[in-house]
Amino acid sequence: MINHRGPEFKELIERLTANLKKLFLTKNDVFFLTASGTGAMEAAVVNTLSPGDKVLSVTTGVFGQRFANIAKAYGANVQDLTVEYGQAAEPETVRRALRADPAIRAVVITHNETSTGVTNDLAAISRIVKGEFDKLLLVDAVSSIGSIPLPVDEWQCDIVATGSQKGWMAPPGIAMISVGPKAWEASKTAKMPRFYFDLTAAKNYLERAQTPWTPALSVLYGLDVGLQKMLKVGLDNVHRKQARIGQLCREGVKSLGLSLLADERHASNTVTAVKVPAGVDGGKLVGTLRTEHNVVLAGGQGPLTGKIFRIGHLGWVEESDIQAVLEALRQALPKVGFTPAAARRS
Amino acid sequence: MINHRGPEFKELIERLTANLKKLFLTKNDVFFLTASGTGAMEAAVVNTLSPGDKVLSVTTGVFGQRFANIAKAYGANVQDLTVEYGQAAEPETVRRALRADPAIRAVVITHNETSTGVTNDLAAISRIVKGEFDKLLLVDAVSSIGSIPLPVDEWQCDIVATGSQKGWMAPPGIAMISVGPKAWEASKTAKMPRFYFDLTAAKNYLERAQTPWTPALSVLYGLDVGLQKMLKVGLDNVHRKQARIGQLCREGVKSLGLSLLADERHASNTVTAVKVPAGVDGGKLVGTLRTEHNVVLAGGQGPLTGKIFRIGHLGWVEESDIQAVLEALRQALPKVGFTPAAARRS
Repeated sequence: MINHRGPEFKELIERLTANLKKLFLTKNDVFFLTASGTGAMEAAVVNTLSPGDKVLSVTTGVFGQRFANIAKAYGANVQDLTVEYGQAAEPETVRRALRADPAIRAVVITHNETSTGVTNDLAAISRIVKGEFDKLLLVDAVSSIGSIPLPVDEWQCDIVATGSQKGWMAPPGIAMISVGPKAWEASKTAKMPRFYFDLTAAKNYLERAQTPWTPALSVLYGLDVGLQKMLKVGLDNVHRKQARIGQLCREGVKSLGLSLLADERHASNTVTAVKVPAGVDGGKLVGTLRTEHNVVLAGGQGPLTGKIFRIGHLGWVEESDIQAVLEALRQALPKVGFTPAAARRS
Repeated sequence: MINHRGPEFKELIERLTANLKKLFLTKNDVFFLTASGTGAMEAAVVNTLSPGDKVLSVTTGVFGQRFANIAKAYGANVQDLTVEYGQAAEPETVRRALRADPAIRAVVITHNETSTGVTNDLAAISRIVKGEFDKLLLVDAVSSIGSIPLPVDEWQCDIVATGSQKGWMAPPGIAMISVGPKAWEASKTAKMPRFYFDLTAAKNYLERAQTPWTPALSVLYGLDVGLQKMLKVGLDNVHRKQARIGQLCREGVKSLGLSLLADERHASNTVTAVKVPAGVDGGKLVGTLRTEHNVVLAGGQGPLTGKIFRIGHLGWVEESDIQAVLEALRQALPKVGFTPAAARRS
């Protein structure tokens, strides 16, 4: 460990900050918070809003619901624009909702909904939220930015939040957040209480190359390597790799005779949600893969528990990893009562 | 990394929880939050209090001030019982303050004030706060528990907060917090808003061996080793070692002709604050020690900036480390214009 108020930390945090701005494609301020991505989502809300403020939540899954719940916990007046799980938000419905209630101050949205494997069309939605209505746009990009294109300045996102354990290839423990001029402006009058997640404190301390509170140093060390690796590979190449891997995963899953949860036009390139076939115990399938094939997949969350399983494929992942997962699935599915399509054909 | 919602995590978090309870000497619930100690202090406040609640803050330094500021940020009506920096709180003044205002609901106090090197007499203060007045007792034990005796149940502390980077010998990034029955009772009516630091969510998730949000896994791995090591050595032996090291440090500092900031009756066994001698540039002294002697000390914080330097001596530290620091000081002091006592005598 190093002294987090000393010159070695100054070097570290300044390099991290400069590199993250390059990967966020932003001139906005960026900060490293010791927290999960959820902490950064809370920071986005409490630094820009006041109790009673009207907020439109574009909710396409469990994480969209979480963003809405954070705003509600702090007293916002939240209108939920809930989309059927597996579908993406329609930009037109966002337009209608904003037109219907001019008092809405902010839109909170999940860019990539990890619980359903859906990527929302943030570019189109931003053109409406920012271009047509000039509302605050707070983005949960935990499992998107860095892996899926999200040019923060071009898309005018006022706040964007992510977590170290996603495409950044570091252990969990650090959340990263970008804060633009309109978010800072909003922070001046925002009355939601805040202390640990006070971004103004983060800004003041960063001016002397520090964080307000003791940071998760060891995670920052990992993140420092991750960001440098991504810059060396090139952001466009990372995105291209993610697109290749996403497609490989979806094609492979379908070739086994399984169905995707996500509307394929909006399927995520960082996580694939697969429907558990009728008659199969989803928990047993995930358990068999873990204990017999050394492959760790996630189950469904919230209302999707038992109905889907999810293959994460972001960060340090290669085509061969996806092929290994598909092969494990091919072998494991018959053990839980499902005959893969390839086997059926043979 | 492991799946933080899988069976390996279950094993890890259950072992961590059981071991931490042994080291906290408590049957209360304990939780691991991904945050610095400040985050756990915020959790203590927001889970037990409502805006407008009267809070007595026993403030003996920068960290006591921070605890008060957290409560104020969330709308508590805080009465600051500020003690001159370097002194400990007098139990009698706490009694008088509580007697003077029966509406006070909670007392927040720093057990070991890292900014001044003072350990408050929490046993005596607890007898008053709990035994005589039955108020909520919220304790910042970030730099005390595990290193300095703090039997949570015996001293009836409703909430106790600490951080992984202190006596627990792990990197920073995880805060630990114990929550007793009266704190849970208070949480049912506590109206301060909370989401990331909602301890009820932490309790609900721990029942299925999970944390609500993705935890800083790598820090938990380190902490797991630290707690096991401490249990193997034995808590009493850890305390005895800390007492020996604290005394060695204080005696050594005085033998150089330097003065302690702390009232010696209440000097801390985890950190020693030393007055910068008249005419010496404190920043230059710390800089010389770092660059020429490879010894990293901390300066003063807040009103003590430039007036003191601090020697941290908790966790993985041995007598030889303290001797090395004292020797470095003996060599560095003349370079910044102060002649150590030993040199003067010769």
